[in-house]
Amino acid sequence: MYYDEAEKLSRLEIERLQLMRLQRTLRQAAKSPFYKERFKECGLDVDAVKSLDDVKSLPFTTKQDLRDSYPDKVLAMPQSEMVRMHVSSGTTGTPTVIYHTQKDLDWWASLMARCMHMVGLRRTDVFQNMSGYGLFTGGLGIHCGAEKLGCLTIPAGAGNSHRQIKLLMDFKVTGIHIIPSYALYLTTIFAELGIDPRTLPLRIALVGAEPYSEESRRRLEALYDMKCYNSYGLSEMNGPGVAFECTEQHGMHVWEDAYLPEIVDPATGEPVPDGEYGELVMTSLGREGMPIIRYRTRDITRFLTEPCPCGREHRRIDRLQGRCDDMMIVKGCNIFPMQIERILMSMPEVGENYLIILERDGFIDNIRVKVEIRDEFFVEDMRQLGSLQKRIASRLRDEILVTPRVELVERNSLPKSEGKAKRVVDNRERGA
Amino acid sequence: MYYDEAEKLSRLEIERLQLMRLQRTLRQAAKSPFYKERFKECGLDVDAVKSLDDVKSLPFTTKQDLRDSYPDKVLAMPQSEMVRMHVSSGTTGTPTVIYHTQKDLDWWASLMARCMHMVGLRRTDVFQNMSGYGLFTGGLGIHCGAEKLGCLTIPAGAGNSHRQIKLLMDFKVTGIHIIPSYALYLTTIFAELGIDPRTLPLRIALVGAEPYSEESRRRLEALYDMKCYNSYGLSEMNGPGVAFECTEQHGMHVWEDAYLPEIVDPATGEPVPDGEYGELVMTSLGREGMPIIRYRTRDITRFLTEPCPCGREHRRIDRLQGRCDDMMIVKGCNIFPMQIERILMSMPEVGENYLIILERDGFIDNIRVKVEIRDEFFVEDMRQLGSLQKRIASRLRDEILVTPRVELVERNSLPKSEGKAKRVVDNRERGA
Ligand SMILES: [Zn+2]
Ligand SMILES: [Zn+2]
Repeated sequence: MYYDEAEKLSRLEIERLQLMRLQRTLRQAAKSPFYKERFKECGLDVDAVKSLDDVKSLPFTTKQDLRDSYPDKVLAMPQSEMVRMHVSSGTTGTPTVIYHTQKDLDWWASLMARCMHMVGLRRTDVFQNMSGYGLFTGGLGIHCGAEKLGCLTIPAGAGNSHRQIKLLMDFKVTGIHIIPSYALYLTTIFAELGIDPRTLPLRIALVGAEPYSEESRRRLEALYDMKCYNSYGLSEMNGPGVAFECTEQHGMHVWEDAYLPEIVDPATGEPVPDGEYGELVMTSLGREGMPIIRYRTRDITRFLTEPCPCGREHRRIDRLQGRCDDMMIVKGCNIFPMQIERILMSMPEVGENYLIILERDGFIDNIRVKVEIRDEFFVEDMRQLGSLQKRIASRLRDEILVTPRVELVERNSLPKSEGKAKRVVDNRERGA
Repeated sequence: MYYDEAEKLSRLEIERLQLMRLQRTLRQAAKSPFYKERFKECGLDVDAVKSLDDVKSLPFTTKQDLRDSYPDKVLAMPQSEMVRMHVSSGTTGTPTVIYHTQKDLDWWASLMARCMHMVGLRRTDVFQNMSGYGLFTGGLGIHCGAEKLGCLTIPAGAGNSHRQIKLLMDFKVTGIHIIPSYALYLTTIFAELGIDPRTLPLRIALVGAEPYSEESRRRLEALYDMKCYNSYGLSEMNGPGVAFECTEQHGMHVWEDAYLPEIVDPATGEPVPDGEYGELVMTSLGREGMPIIRYRTRDITRFLTEPCPCGREHRRIDRLQGRCDDMMIVKGCNIFPMQIERILMSMPEVGENYLIILERDGFIDNIRVKVEIRDEFFVEDMRQLGSLQKRIASRLRDEILVTPRVELVERNSLPKSEGKAKRVVDNRERGA
């Protein structure tokens, strides 16, 4: 049933362990030039941290801090103790580097193996890793977890679709790690070859690295006749294996014996009430080589507050809602475009396109949402349209706590964008 | 001094260990469907193998055998015990697949770490692996060895030259794994950046996967101010880590506690006298998942018979002389073009081009060698040319055991080929 003891911990046991490991992690971090200075700056006495609540008084670590510390100022042990490093892709500027000792790697692999075991993979499974290897953590991270679990691991790497399909078939692969858009693309190659992917013995896909909707998940599951499980990871916290869906497919359990997650208001850094959206902040609790304290992930999510039917008491985070940089502040409320999208897309009357416009009337910010309505609902009867309009506004208000102005428009009347859709227009005067 | 005990073994101890492990390997191999049948076919009683000499009576395994056994007929244990597979690239037709248990992988990593330690790499080194990862064994094979040794391992992967150089510099890399042609190419990028690679802290390069000459090695060593060590490996025997140069840079020690090497006549399969060229045949002595008996590598080399000054008694093989498919049979002698090339290129009078022509006079095969002579030696004095001609013929005869007809020609008089040079023309009538 469980891969290891840590999965069975109660809340009380988790929190006791977290406090112990947080204290150890702080003492370890203080050995690095970066944290030594940072702790001194903010007058932090690590021995004064006596409860998990004290974590709120600890300084944050940002991506920029890690960049400024390039290449090795966050190392808490001599570089000779390190056996691997990964480098974040970082499209521009200085990359960030994460170092690992052998013990760090072993624990990472165990956490990854735990994720895979949780969704039903076993040592008897044949697992094909379709991730690029190298500096990107998705390759070696997933690979080492699969080997640790004892799966027959096929390091297929990225690309070469015909070979991927040949491997899947020849070796009766039962588990894969794949990017959702590539999984969709592969179905076109299957079709060309006249092969129905549902006839493969494939049972389980680990899916991450790319945002994709619940609808896409269900579609992939149907196309391949397999279960897809969402994965969350970031190289600063090792990589894959940080949080993972259980078979309930509802939220991702954060392995709280290894990480201390918080959700904060991205504007103020203050904790948000349980269950509300905010920025995920993570502290590593198990890394010796390069511990990281209160890392600002820039990812928006929330804790799911109900107990998970699977019985695990490690808290779940919701599907990611986007990046902090997408956050809008309207009338003092933090609003993420994904919140609006999710409400709109849940209503059958709404078409595929919408536009969010931020405006200012005098000193008051307003939010206007233009929504394309499907032909069959775009009727002449103004009363029906008015009622739909009110319903949408009210549903949105429940979610974002601000009442938007809703405008219903005909299909294809909003500007279409090539590539990534531009969903938000900010017409407020800056600095006014 | 030594990474492990096995490096210190005397010949006697090596051979005692080899016999024990050969017997164990045969019993293990007999559990696989392929060897079970093969042993039955040739009436082999594995318990009757009582000396290392008995290996000569064992059946060979060819690449074609492995292809015919695709995907899993050579497995000696249930597939569920396997944790990784690698697939040979195989430009055409069915690939060959090699499976590994965790124990197999651990031993492979140890052998690889031993190679790296032998040439002076230590846990304090920073090691950048510029190999493609994935199914190709050069990536994960070298990577796991470097981690095992405790180097800070940078999984840089192939390509992206500017990033490779940035990593080399930022992390003060001291050891690399690189393909010789890529190492040469990188120097052009260094030049563009105005960086002299000799100023890097780089000390050691592991070089394999591509044939390259001693001259290229010396050139690379000078360009980077580092030592280059040749590596031999093939995926059927794990991958890298099979044989490796010591700091003497003269021949590659085969780890004979893990492999039983033989050199045979590629035409007859009979052993050749010690020190003569032939096809390398390898038996794995340590693999439990997929033992392979007397694998015909198709690679041409010879044992170096003198003791190595480094003190290790694991036998050395010479630099590879090419593939069996290049072998010519003339007057009953096996001749490889590389033997002729090596002699010619060692003589200062000889230019860069030559041509080998096989002819038949009646029933007698002859070999004719046309050799371009450098301008400064191509003098009018026929006596001097005649003397040079005789000297070349005599040096070649010592090497190939057949006296060739030598013709001296002016520079640029032989046909130039684009790409891979065509060095051999066979004018003998086939089936005559
Ligand atoms: Zn659960
Ligand atoms: Zn030696």
